[in-house]
Amino acid sequence: MKIALAQLNYHVGNFEANTQKIIAAIREAEEQNAEIVVFSELCISGYPARDFLEFDDFISQCSNALNEIAQHTHKVAALVGCPRKNPVKEGKDLFNSAFFLYQGEVKHITDKTLLPTYDIFDEYRYFEPNKKFEVVHFKDKKLAITICEDIWNVGNDNPLYTICPMDELIKQSPDIILNLSASPFSYIQHEERMKVIRANVSRYKIPMLYVNQVGAQTELIFDGGSVVVNENGAIAEQLQFFKEDFKVVDSENISESSLNNQESLAPGELIYNALVLGIRDYFSKLGFKKAILGLSGGIDSALVLCLAVEALGKENVLSLLLPSEFSSDHSLADAKQLCENLGTKYETVPIESNFQSFIQTLNPFFKDLPFNVAEENLQARVRGVLLMAFSNKFGYILLNTTNKSEAAVGYGTLYGDMCGGLAVLGDVYKTQVYELSNFINRNGEVIPQNIISKAPSAELRPNQKDSDSLPEYDVLDKILFQYIEKRQGPKELVAMGFDKKLIDRVLKMVNGSEWKRNQAPPILRVSPKAFGMGRRMNIEGKYLG
Amino acid sequence: MKIALAQLNYHVGNFEANTQKIIAAIREAEEQNAEIVVFSELCISGYPARDFLEFDDFISQCSNALNEIAQHTHKVAALVGCPRKNPVKEGKDLFNSAFFLYQGEVKHITDKTLLPTYDIFDEYRYFEPNKKFEVVHFKDKKLAITICEDIWNVGNDNPLYTICPMDELIKQSPDIILNLSASPFSYIQHEERMKVIRANVSRYKIPMLYVNQVGAQTELIFDGGSVVVNENGAIAEQLQFFKEDFKVVDSENISESSLNNQESLAPGELIYNALVLGIRDYFSKLGFKKAILGLSGGIDSALVLCLAVEALGKENVLSLLLPSEFSSDHSLADAKQLCENLGTKYETVPIESNFQSFIQTLNPFFKDLPFNVAEENLQARVRGVLLMAFSNKFGYILLNTTNKSEAAVGYGTLYGDMCGGLAVLGDVYKTQVYELSNFINRNGEVIPQNIISKAPSAELRPNQKDSDSLPEYDVLDKILFQYIEKRQGPKELVAMGFDKKLIDRVLKMVNGSEWKRNQAPPILRVSPKAFGMGRRMNIEGKYLG
Repeated sequence: MKIALAQLNYHVGNFEANTQKIIAAIREAEEQNAEIVVFSELCISGYPARDFLEFDDFISQCSNALNEIAQHTHKVAALVGCPRKNPVKEGKDLFNSAFFLYQGEVKHITDKTLLPTYDIFDEYRYFEPNKKFEVVHFKDKKLAITICEDIWNVGNDNPLYTICPMDELIKQSPDIILNLSASPFSYIQHEERMKVIRANVSRYKIPMLYVNQVGAQTELIFDGGSVVVNENGAIAEQLQFFKEDFKVVDSENISESSLNNQESLAPGELIYNALVLGIRDYFSKLGFKKAILGLSGGIDSALVLCLAVEALGKENVLSLLLPSEFSSDHSLADAKQLCENLGTKYETVPIESNFQSFIQTLNPFFKDLPFNVAEENLQARVRGVLLMAFSNKFGYILLNTTNKSEAAVGYGTLYGDMCGGLAVLGDVYKTQVYELSNFINRNGEVIPQNIISKAPSAELRPNQKDSDSLPEYDVLDKILFQYIEKRQGPKELVAMGFDKKLIDRVLKMVNGSEWKRNQAPPILRVSPKAFGMGRRMNIEGKYLG
Repeated sequence: MKIALAQLNYHVGNFEANTQKIIAAIREAEEQNAEIVVFSELCISGYPARDFLEFDDFISQCSNALNEIAQHTHKVAALVGCPRKNPVKEGKDLFNSAFFLYQGEVKHITDKTLLPTYDIFDEYRYFEPNKKFEVVHFKDKKLAITICEDIWNVGNDNPLYTICPMDELIKQSPDIILNLSASPFSYIQHEERMKVIRANVSRYKIPMLYVNQVGAQTELIFDGGSVVVNENGAIAEQLQFFKEDFKVVDSENISESSLNNQESLAPGELIYNALVLGIRDYFSKLGFKKAILGLSGGIDSALVLCLAVEALGKENVLSLLLPSEFSSDHSLADAKQLCENLGTKYETVPIESNFQSFIQTLNPFFKDLPFNVAEENLQARVRGVLLMAFSNKFGYILLNTTNKSEAAVGYGTLYGDMCGGLAVLGDVYKTQVYELSNFINRNGEVIPQNIISKAPSAELRPNQKDSDSLPEYDVLDKILFQYIEKRQGPKELVAMGFDKKLIDRVLKMVNGSEWKRNQAPPILRVSPKAFGMGRRMNIEGKYLG
């Protein structure tokens, strides 16, 4: 049986665009003589539609789109994801469903059983879990239809559910597992995914055809990488990463396949690709074209500029150089050199007069109190005001350049350098910022070496260095990784050999800055645990704070 | 049997404070010859502990506290809420449990069955649902122990679950239902709660003793109001609202009780009490004392000042009057009058010189472009910078004064008037702001009448009125209420008689400002649907946008 995999980039709630994309893919499948075309999870609404799902009107629009799509399934069957109303009063109001459309009709509905409700997932917020298991008979085949998480209780060290849907479906002797997914990227996700797919294939001894969504949805980046794995665990077909793609496979010809696993990219390149897609889709889905950022001469803003130029084009990015009396000469020179290397525009806007104007206004109140964090933050906020003024006047969207290490310990000024529409590096530790910068320079210097090699500084007071306030980043990032990604507490960190005082200091900084992160821009998620929708902390909690 | 209800205010993660409070209440119960003392849901950790629950270290600290508390239960039994590890590998890692402690030991554990996962609740994120039902035998009684949501599938028009735990427990003929709750306030919640409690009592024909948490946890305000309802549906005991309280009832003497339902307060007074508690606990739990706010002469900031003075004391609140060239004379005079009425401090800090300083800096770039939203926002941001400078220099926490109508339609300046540690009125529509202001003036003028009666204006350009950009608030708020609280879509709104063009315009404004609200301060929740943790929207979605 010839089955098409349609790996598309959907726009949440944009029913017209999503429907047209799906219909075009059905036509393409028809032209390539496919008998079924498989789409990704909840493709009609886009994933995640979040609380739009609570609106009857939104669900009606999903149904209308589904009916329109069904009209295009006369020759080829289509398996599409769409929410549907729970006909029973008791239980949640919706199911997360896969509709098997053929000959203009809904021939079968499969509801999702395992509803991920952890990290960035909220599915039990909306959906009732399925409790009935039925394979779909189509022509001479039996299809086991599963939706994303349904296959993830197998091959998992920490199974989150007490049942495995395929354990039920396998009793009906299906020929193949079809899986509709919306599985977001992290730098370990492809590996995890292949482990889970292979664990299923190995347990059930039938092939799996897995279709993932591609494209970014604000914080979440979907990397595609749809795949067909045969009953021996070999890859029979592999779709592209970070791009729309469409392939047809013949299920009769996959047993012999033995494509190697796609050579896995280094985390640096993976993250680079993900961030570029994240920026590009944020702008295109919101209907924006132009970005602005403050270019300090430091490595974080340098990296964001490179990513933005790649994502949006060099003509669509403006850098503001915003020097103060504490800015070093080399900062300005390095920033200019970078813009020249990239062939991108910049303007220099010294902040001294605005800063001094505030100092004068505040003088009757501050009197002789010493220069402290108030004046440091004031500089960062003057920069924020200037960047936002350009944004408002000319329609640029401000890119935030805070990295994950800074976000973690609260090393940044709220309403100052924490401003922006999108936080590009908020899930990238400082040590990873260096890795990414070196990746960008792999074929020659784009980011001036001086930017990479100088000691990090906020340049908000004379001769300031990040290391005045923070541990060295190589140690800091290791502690942060264990605490944030691995949820290790103080005892476990001591057992790993970190210094007790340092641990206490770092964890206190992290927990004590929840209030700040709570107001940060959305962060492009590239790790298994990013700040933002997937990490929900108590602001006034006292734990380790 | 004499049973004590301990309605306490917990601090999430503050194990020492929570444990001492619980032990003191056990002693009090002993002194009053109670045989059991019942606490609220997850009282040991405080509710909601959110992702702290993912840390083994946090769960260990819960267990340690539980063991310490158990040592104090030699004469009196204590029923306390505490998370516990799921001993089975499959399923979520934790249960949300009630521990029955007696004679220094854990005598029984009851796990929660119905895990609220909607609005502000995320319980299936952490907890495995219970599937075993057993009453607890204690002395000559059989106790049906339930945890919060466990009783909410009864008497509910939209039952979210397919089972009712009490349907199972009632088979074992319990004498009384004990319920440990953490049920947050909204202005309709007390009524809903009593409806549900009475529906249970009426269905199972036994009394219920219901203990709720009190106190605010950032966005969430728990209103207490613990209650004992006898088998006839009459209130046998009622604890206070918005305060810690402790009462002992004798289960033998409640059948005859017929206390009337507590006279229900008007929504205005309820919301007033809730907001005062919300401010007070935010400050006390974070260890802050002093608040600052920008006092514009408008009604929103006037109301916030009154609430802050009530919550924190007049000596702990500083108002900044930040006039610009567009501020009317009466604005300044009204603001001063309010401060004098309240006996609270203010400072006047004109923003003109700082604003002009930015205009000069921007002039080479803005050239002859007309004054527009860029210059309007600039004024709001200069105010934000000044308020934050005071905050940083003197340790004041900035209170945000944005109301729910403004937050809904994005009528506010990000990093300007949207700054602040806590948004006091973010869940209070403009029309409710007037109601609350009139409530404050119920015994004489506190808020000058002129502040209440003048037309709302942001005063960011000459003769500006809110009604230049927005529909009149009485119409706007009705549409917003139907869309936000009731999730009514365009068709339903048209059917209600609202103008189609106006609906489209308003919904577009709401959906188009998710990005702005995403960076707003935490909002004190007083309605059934507040912006913040309970409303999770897609920023780049296209639906009605």
